[in-house]
Amino acid sequence: MAAIIDGVAEITKKVEEVILGEDGKPLSKGALKKLEKEREKKKKQEERAAKDAAERAARDAASPDYSTDRYGNLPVNQSEERTGRTRTKIASLSEKNIDETVLLSARLQTSRPTGNKKNFIVLRQGTVTAQAVLTVDETKISKQMQKFSCGITSESLVLVEAKVVKALQQVTSCTIQDVELQIEKLHVISAAARLPFSLEDATRPDEDYEKDPALVRVALATRLDHRPIDLRTTTNHAIFRMQHGVCKLFREYLEQHDFVEIHTPKLLGAASEGGANVFKVEYFNETAFLAQSPQFYKQMMITSDFAKVFEIGTVFRAENSQSHRHMTEYVSLDMEMEFEEHYHEVLDVFDGLLVHILKGLKERYTDEIAVIKKQFPFEDFEFLDKSLRLTYPEAVKMLRDAGVEFGDYDDMNTAQERILGKLVKEKYHTDFFMLDKFPLAVRPFYTMPDPARPGYSNSYDFFMRGEEILSGAQRVHNAAMLQKRAEENDPPIDPTTIQPYLDAFKFGAPPHAGGALGMERVLMLFLDLGNIRRTSLFPRDPNRLGP
Amino acid sequence: MAAIIDGVAEITKKVEEVILGEDGKPLSKGALKKLEKEREKKKKQEERAAKDAAERAARDAASPDYSTDRYGNLPVNQSEERTGRTRTKIASLSEKNIDETVLLSARLQTSRPTGNKKNFIVLRQGTVTAQAVLTVDETKISKQMQKFSCGITSESLVLVEAKVVKALQQVTSCTIQDVELQIEKLHVISAAARLPFSLEDATRPDEDYEKDPALVRVALATRLDHRPIDLRTTTNHAIFRMQHGVCKLFREYLEQHDFVEIHTPKLLGAASEGGANVFKVEYFNETAFLAQSPQFYKQMMITSDFAKVFEIGTVFRAENSQSHRHMTEYVSLDMEMEFEEHYHEVLDVFDGLLVHILKGLKERYTDEIAVIKKQFPFEDFEFLDKSLRLTYPEAVKMLRDAGVEFGDYDDMNTAQERILGKLVKEKYHTDFFMLDKFPLAVRPFYTMPDPARPGYSNSYDFFMRGEEILSGAQRVHNAAMLQKRAEENDPPIDPTTIQPYLDAFKFGAPPHAGGALGMERVLMLFLDLGNIRRTSLFPRDPNRLGP
Repeated sequence: MAAIIDGVAEITKKVEEVILGEDGKPLSKGALKKLEKEREKKKKQEERAAKDAAERAARDAASPDYSTDRYGNLPVNQSEERTGRTRTKIASLSEKNIDETVLLSARLQTSRPTGNKKNFIVLRQGTVTAQAVLTVDETKISKQMQKFSCGITSESLVLVEAKVVKALQQVTSCTIQDVELQIEKLHVISAAARLPFSLEDATRPDEDYEKDPALVRVALATRLDHRPIDLRTTTNHAIFRMQHGVCKLFREYLEQHDFVEIHTPKLLGAASEGGANVFKVEYFNETAFLAQSPQFYKQMMITSDFAKVFEIGTVFRAENSQSHRHMTEYVSLDMEMEFEEHYHEVLDVFDGLLVHILKGLKERYTDEIAVIKKQFPFEDFEFLDKSLRLTYPEAVKMLRDAGVEFGDYDDMNTAQERILGKLVKEKYHTDFFMLDKFPLAVRPFYTMPDPARPGYSNSYDFFMRGEEILSGAQRVHNAAMLQKRAEENDPPIDPTTIQPYLDAFKFGAPPHAGGALGMERVLMLFLDLGNIRRTSLFPRDPNRLGP
Repeated sequence: MAAIIDGVAEITKKVEEVILGEDGKPLSKGALKKLEKEREKKKKQEERAAKDAAERAARDAASPDYSTDRYGNLPVNQSEERTGRTRTKIASLSEKNIDETVLLSARLQTSRPTGNKKNFIVLRQGTVTAQAVLTVDETKISKQMQKFSCGITSESLVLVEAKVVKALQQVTSCTIQDVELQIEKLHVISAAARLPFSLEDATRPDEDYEKDPALVRVALATRLDHRPIDLRTTTNHAIFRMQHGVCKLFREYLEQHDFVEIHTPKLLGAASEGGANVFKVEYFNETAFLAQSPQFYKQMMITSDFAKVFEIGTVFRAENSQSHRHMTEYVSLDMEMEFEEHYHEVLDVFDGLLVHILKGLKERYTDEIAVIKKQFPFEDFEFLDKSLRLTYPEAVKMLRDAGVEFGDYDDMNTAQERILGKLVKEKYHTDFFMLDKFPLAVRPFYTMPDPARPGYSNSYDFFMRGEEILSGAQRVHNAAMLQKRAEENDPPIDPTTIQPYLDAFKFGAPPHAGGALGMERVLMLFLDLGNIRRTSLFPRDPNRLGP
C-alpha cells in the first residue's frame, strides 16, 4: 500500500515535469490551460466511476462468488514447486491453436471494461500483444472476478489460463490479430504501482503532438530518471536488440578474420596521453586513473605478436560536455592489427567490417527498424559495397568549393563535418565514408607521420551521416621515434609517465594500425536518433550518475 | 644505441631479480656460486668471440661485398608504398612449396652460426617456427652479409626472401619440420634490444629446474613487470587464445538461447550493497563509485522485460587481498533471466552453458592445451554431461563424514571448499559441480529465502577443482520484501542509497534468477594454473597498477 501511495505522489510530481517539452521549455499558456481542463474533466469522470463502482460492489457482495479459485493475487514466487506445466508464448499463437486451453504469464497492458459483464484486456510479452476477454457467465466467471480484473493496475504481471478462440474481427491494435483469448483464470503475479508516465505516452511519435498538443509529452530527462520503465517501450526493446546486433556483427567479422579478443585494464597507474579528461580513483594509498581507451594496451598486444586483436569494453572520459554525442562513459569497439607493407591493408579490413555491420543491421533487423521508425521516423541509411575513401585535402577542397573557409591544416569542427557529410551524400550517395590523411598536428603523438606529404599523417576518421564514429591511424612502432614525438607533443608528455608503453617497442615491433568505434554512436547515427543517450541503457554525463 | 645500452643495464638489474624463485625467496649460496661461475665463463667466451670477430672483420673488410642489395636495416615503415607482393605465412609451408621463392616477415628467434660460412636461424611467426639457413657463396651471399646476419639480435623482426628446400633431416626443434628456407635476402624491419629475460627461460617447465637448478628461473613478478615480452611465449599465446574461447563459448550458448547482450554503467552515483570494497572516483564536483558488479542493472533489465540478458564487462573490487585468486579488476560474465515457476529453470540453462564452455574448451583447443601442458602440466578437467547438483546440507554431510567440523549454517572457507572438491571428485568423478541452497545469512540481501527450509535460500555457487567460479541466486522481485531485507541486512543498508533499484520492482517484476562467472577463474581452474594473474593479460592487485 505504501508503494502505491509513493507511486501516486510520484505521478503528481512527474506531471509537473512532463509538461516541459523535450527541450526543457514550458508549454504555452494556452496549452497549459487546455491541459488543466482535460485534467479536471478526467478527475470528474473518475469520481463518477468510483461512485458507480461502490454501488455495484454493494450489490455484488450480496451475490455468491463461484469463481474464488479462478482469480486472486498470488503470493510472492519463492520457487515453491515446479510442475513443469507448459507456458505459452503469445508470439506462437495462431489459428491452429483454436480451442486449445493455454497457460501464460504476461503483462496486463490495458484493461477496458464494457458494461459490467465484459473486460477487454491487452496482454503483452516483451513487444508482442494479444487481446484477451473476460466475460461474466452463470457458472465459472463471477461478477466478483470481473471486478477483480478491472482493478488490476496497468503493467501488472498476470498468470492467465484461457481458451484460444477465433477473433470476431481482426484485432488491429495487437500483434496477434487472428485469435484472441477467452479468460478462464486470472491471477496477479506481481502488481504494478501507477507508472510515472504511461508507455503509450513514452512511445508516441512527434507528429502526434502536432495533431494534438494536449497530449502528454515525456521529456528525455524524465525517461532517463525512470529508465527501467522507459526501457519497456517497444521502441527501446528494438533499439537495444540492435545494440546487441552492433557488437555481434563486430565480433562476427573480426573472428572470421582471425582477430583475438582481449580484455585490458581500466585502472591505470599513470594518466596516459597527457592526463587531460582523466578520472582519478582512490587506489588504496595511491591514485589510479580510469582508462580513456585501451590504446596503449592493444598496441602492446601487437608487440607481443598477437597480430590482430579486438576489445569491447567500457572507457571513461572526464569531459565536461553536455553535447548530444558525448558521455563520460561509453563502450569502445577497439581493434588493432599488424600489417606487412602499408596501413591501407588495415583500412581494407575496417572497410569490410563496417560494411558487414551496416549490411547486417539493415538485413537482420528489419522488424526492429520498422518499430523504431514508428516513433522516430528516419531516412534509411545509405552505404556503398566498397566504401568511399577521401583524403583530407580532397575533403578540404569540397568544403572550399561549397564556400567554407578552411586552412590546409585546420582541424574540422562538428559543423564542418556535418557540411562535409551532406556534400558527400549529394555527390556520392552514401551516408558512410572514410577520411584519410589527417593533418599531423591535430592527431595524438603516437600517430605515424606521412613521409610523402609533410604536415599530414597516416591517420583516418570514419563518418556516418556527417558525424565521426571511428578514429584511427598507423601508429609509430619505433621506440626512439615514439619517445621523440611524445617529448615534442604540445603539451610535452613526460616519457617516464608512459615508460612501459615506450619500452614495449624496444624489442622489435611490427608496423601496425588500428582504430576504435563508439558503439552508441554507430547505433545513434544508423537510426538517426539525434541523442546518444537514446542508445545507452543508463547514460552517464557530467550531470547524470543515476539510476 | 642508447636503447641497447638501456637494455644491457636492464638485463643486469633483472639478473639480480630473477635469481629469486617463484616464491620470491633467494636461491641457496651454493646455487648462487654456481650461477656466478657460469656467468664468468660466459663472459670469457664472449670476450674471445668478440676478439675473433674483430680479426675476421678486418680480413673481410678487404674483400669486395657483392651482397649490398641483399641485406641491411630497413628504414622505419611509414607506409611508403604498397606493392601487394604476397607475404608467406610460415604455417603454410610444406613439401609442395619446394623450389619456390617466398617473401616473409618473422621474428629472428635464434641465430646459430657454424664456422664463418653458415648461419642457422630460427624464424618465428606467432607460435610457428621454421629453420632458415644462410650460406656464404661466391656470387650472392657475401661474408659481410653473413656477419650482418650474426649481428641481428634475437627477437628482431626481419624480412626474408628465401628458397624453400627439403630439410636434410627433420627439423625437430621447429614447428615446420620437412622443409627449411635458404636465405637469399635478409633485412631488419625492427631491431630488438636485449630482452630482460629470454623467451626460452620464460617457457621452461618446472621439471627442467629439477634436472638443472642453475637454469635461470623467471619469477612471476618479473614476467608481469615485462608483460609484453612475457606474452610472446607460446604458452601465453595459447592461454589467451583460450581466454577468447571462454568468452566466445559463453556468448555462443546464450545467444542460441535468446539472451540479449547489455552494457551497464561502471560509474555509479551510490555505493551499492553496503559500500564495502568500493573504489571512489572524483566525478567533477561529486564522488562516484566503481561498479562491483552489474547486479542491480541486469535485474532492472529484467523488470524492463528483456527476459534474458548477459554482459561481459570489467568489474572492480577494492579488496586488499594478495591471494592467488583475487584481483582488484576482473572480467565478469554476467547473466540474468526471468523464469515461470522455479529458479531451477535458470539453473538448467546455466548447467547447459557450463557444459558448453567446458566441452568447447576441451574439443576446440586441443593444440593450445598441448602447448600449455608442456610448461604447466595438469590433469585433464573432468566433467559430466549433466552436471552434479548438490544441496548445501548434502555437502555439509560429506564434509562431516570426512571429519570436518561444520555447523549447519556456517559459511564454507576456501580450505573447506577444496576438501569438498576432492570428496566430490572421488565420489562422482567430476571437477565441476553446483552447490544449491546456501544458508540465507551468508548471501546478499537480494537473495530469495527458501520458503521450505528456514535459514536457507534459493542460491547457488558453481565450483571447478574445488574453487568457486560462479555465484548466483533467485532474487527477491517484490519491492516491499526487498526493502525489508535491505533494512534488516547486517550491517543495514539505507534504502535511499539504492532507491532506483528498489523502485524498479514496484511496477510489476517477474521472478528471476542469475549469476556471474569470473572469466579469469574459469580459465585458471580449467588449466589448473594456480594463480589468476596467469590468466589476466595485465593483472591488477593492491600492489600492482602497471604496466
